[in-house]
Amino acid sequence: MAEHNAQLPNSYLKGPVVVFGTGLLGTSIGLGLSQRGLRVLLSDPSPSALSVAVDIGAGIPLGTDPGVWPELVVVAAPPDVCARVVADALERFPAAFVVDVASVKGAILRELAELSAKTPLDLSRYVGTHPMAGRERAGAVSARGELFNAMPWVVCPHAGSSAAAVQAAQNLGLDLGAVLSQFSPEEHDEAVALVSHLPQMMASLVAARLQDAAPHALSLAGNGLRDVTRIAASDASMWVPIMSANAEPIAAILHAVHEDLIKLIGTLDGPAAPGASLAMAKLISAGNAGQARIPGKHGGPAQPYAWLSVLVDDEPGQIAQLLTEIGEIGVNLEDLRLDHSSGRNAGIVEISVLPAKRDVLIDELAVRGWKVLQ
Amino acid sequence: MAEHNAQLPNSYLKGPVVVFGTGLLGTSIGLGLSQRGLRVLLSDPSPSALSVAVDIGAGIPLGTDPGVWPELVVVAAPPDVCARVVADALERFPAAFVVDVASVKGAILRELAELSAKTPLDLSRYVGTHPMAGRERAGAVSARGELFNAMPWVVCPHAGSSAAAVQAAQNLGLDLGAVLSQFSPEEHDEAVALVSHLPQMMASLVAARLQDAAPHALSLAGNGLRDVTRIAASDASMWVPIMSANAEPIAAILHAVHEDLIKLIGTLDGPAAPGASLAMAKLISAGNAGQARIPGKHGGPAQPYAWLSVLVDDEPGQIAQLLTEIGEIGVNLEDLRLDHSSGRNAGIVEISVLPAKRDVLIDELAVRGWKVLQ
Repeated sequence: MAEHNAQLPNSYLKGPVVVFGTGLLGTSIGLGLSQRGLRVLLSDPSPSALSVAVDIGAGIPLGTDPGVWPELVVVAAPPDVCARVVADALERFPAAFVVDVASVKGAILRELAELSAKTPLDLSRYVGTHPMAGRERAGAVSARGELFNAMPWVVCPHAGSSAAAVQAAQNLGLDLGAVLSQFSPEEHDEAVALVSHLPQMMASLVAARLQDAAPHALSLAGNGLRDVTRIAASDASMWVPIMSANAEPIAAILHAVHEDLIKLIGTLDGPAAPGASLAMAKLISAGNAGQARIPGKHGGPAQPYAWLSVLVDDEPGQIAQLLTEIGEIGVNLEDLRLDHSSGRNAGIVEISVLPAKRDVLIDELAVRGWKVLQ
Repeated sequence: MAEHNAQLPNSYLKGPVVVFGTGLLGTSIGLGLSQRGLRVLLSDPSPSALSVAVDIGAGIPLGTDPGVWPELVVVAAPPDVCARVVADALERFPAAFVVDVASVKGAILRELAELSAKTPLDLSRYVGTHPMAGRERAGAVSARGELFNAMPWVVCPHAGSSAAAVQAAQNLGLDLGAVLSQFSPEEHDEAVALVSHLPQMMASLVAARLQDAAPHALSLAGNGLRDVTRIAASDASMWVPIMSANAEPIAAILHAVHEDLIKLIGTLDGPAAPGASLAMAKLISAGNAGQARIPGKHGGPAQPYAWLSVLVDDEPGQIAQLLTEIGEIGVNLEDLRLDHSSGRNAGIVEISVLPAKRDVLIDELAVRGWKVLQ
């Protein structure tokens, strides 16, 4: 850390950093690094997107100055053009490390290997990464320097990545306040197929069934349906490239789901048959076991939180007051949900706390006049 | 309403009310009606369950007194014994209306028709109902008189239900503060298969895939996976009877899901084939369209809420302070989530508000020193 300039906030990277692509991710990276005091140069095929990124302070235009010698080039381009931009960056900046931030890794690496077979590339300087911090709004205008703060940033070196390139990729995540982890590209793609792409596919499949439902039926929708289908609102233009690029790992998991689904349909077609009840119980239990493995808050082991529900008037002040009093009681809130399955102007706040704190909290809230439902 | 005793809170029912089954639902009904000033008599095959319900004030034991003439009998027994208890109640109390509160309706009605074919029953006095207000904890000890407050209560008359019986079933829901709706038993079973049983099946299928996942992979789990699998934690002993009793409508929907899944797998098996990208986009778009149909808060039409995220320290006081200030700014909170995909002791609060309020709120929060991520 001897290189740190005492006049600037500490940073792991020294810069300059070139960012190709000034969409949400690229602009947020530029903003975050600029706020650290690093020199950032920006490039985008769209002059207007570039202007917005420059105007909000994410960096200055890269231009065609041949005298730029960046420490690191960040490629924040869509998955289907990413490999080509990485290849160009490796050629144009022969002393720079190059990372990309696309949400699939194997497909990009395969395409780079193909490009390198035609015109040899120094792929030792390349490391794929995946910051897991998308937002619902896209574009430079939605960028925030804090976008990656406290969010996972997966560094995925390939077999030929140099140690120095890996360090540069890690430094990028550290400078943006992210939480680092390291996967091989194959491990990464299988992991996101399971924890990100599978839920998206299943949420879309459930939500697709609602298209032709009677409004009457939908009036019975509760938080279960809302939870399962929330991500079904995601944008097709974001998902199609991901599905294309990670098709094989996603399909492998869906084949396994398909087998389970066929078994379930067979069971439901003869619910009174011997063994049918056991088969149903086994599916629900398998779900219990899998769900319990999802890590808890702060990456720790899953905690069996205890829930309680409090009835409040439908006013923001009410919920704030409730949380203030929970703080006064000295109980730490682990999770919180609002329940809108109601047809009235009253809401239910579901609160989860450590199991040992549940009864204390129920008693204290009741003393303070709150309507605790359970 | 002329019958109302001025000394007691108004009630729609006059009582007495007999409740068969002192689990969570039956005891909560007893508590709620007792709190309205109604006379409630309780019965349960388990003497200890009955004692708990009596001790917490849900009513007095029914005993064998032949002189009881209830206005209404509420059967709060599991779905697989419900019809027999309803039949016994119709015989034992020839002047009473009888309702059940099981979460499936067609199977109970079919079993009652079979019982009536052997020993004729006056089914005009019977109406099935479904209060949609389960809790994660079962048993009389978890009961609350407010359990049904502001929650949906579906009244499902069969073709032979008398108008007076339907009125009694409605009065029960009204006295417990629930929001009434009316479905035929078939409509009800198809609706809950779609909005409740389908999401449960799909959540369990997704979560089951996590059983053998590498811990490394699960460390990348975000809110998408958490949302989709949350209800996979539900209890098999609750779900097996529901799946058995509503097997046909659930299977019908799963057959349609199966067709979509087969198409999706076919597309992913050849992601570069002509039309593959369009097929992927169509699935995501179908999910968008279905998800958008889920009714909004308070049963109104779905509102396209706008989300923003605020970075907070992981302390309950922080979130309360944030909500207090949102109240001061005068913006109504539509939904709120805590984001735990973090590995740090900082949290992200996702807030949804009406779209027109989003920019105002972002500006005001920033002025007050909050770190708004988008």
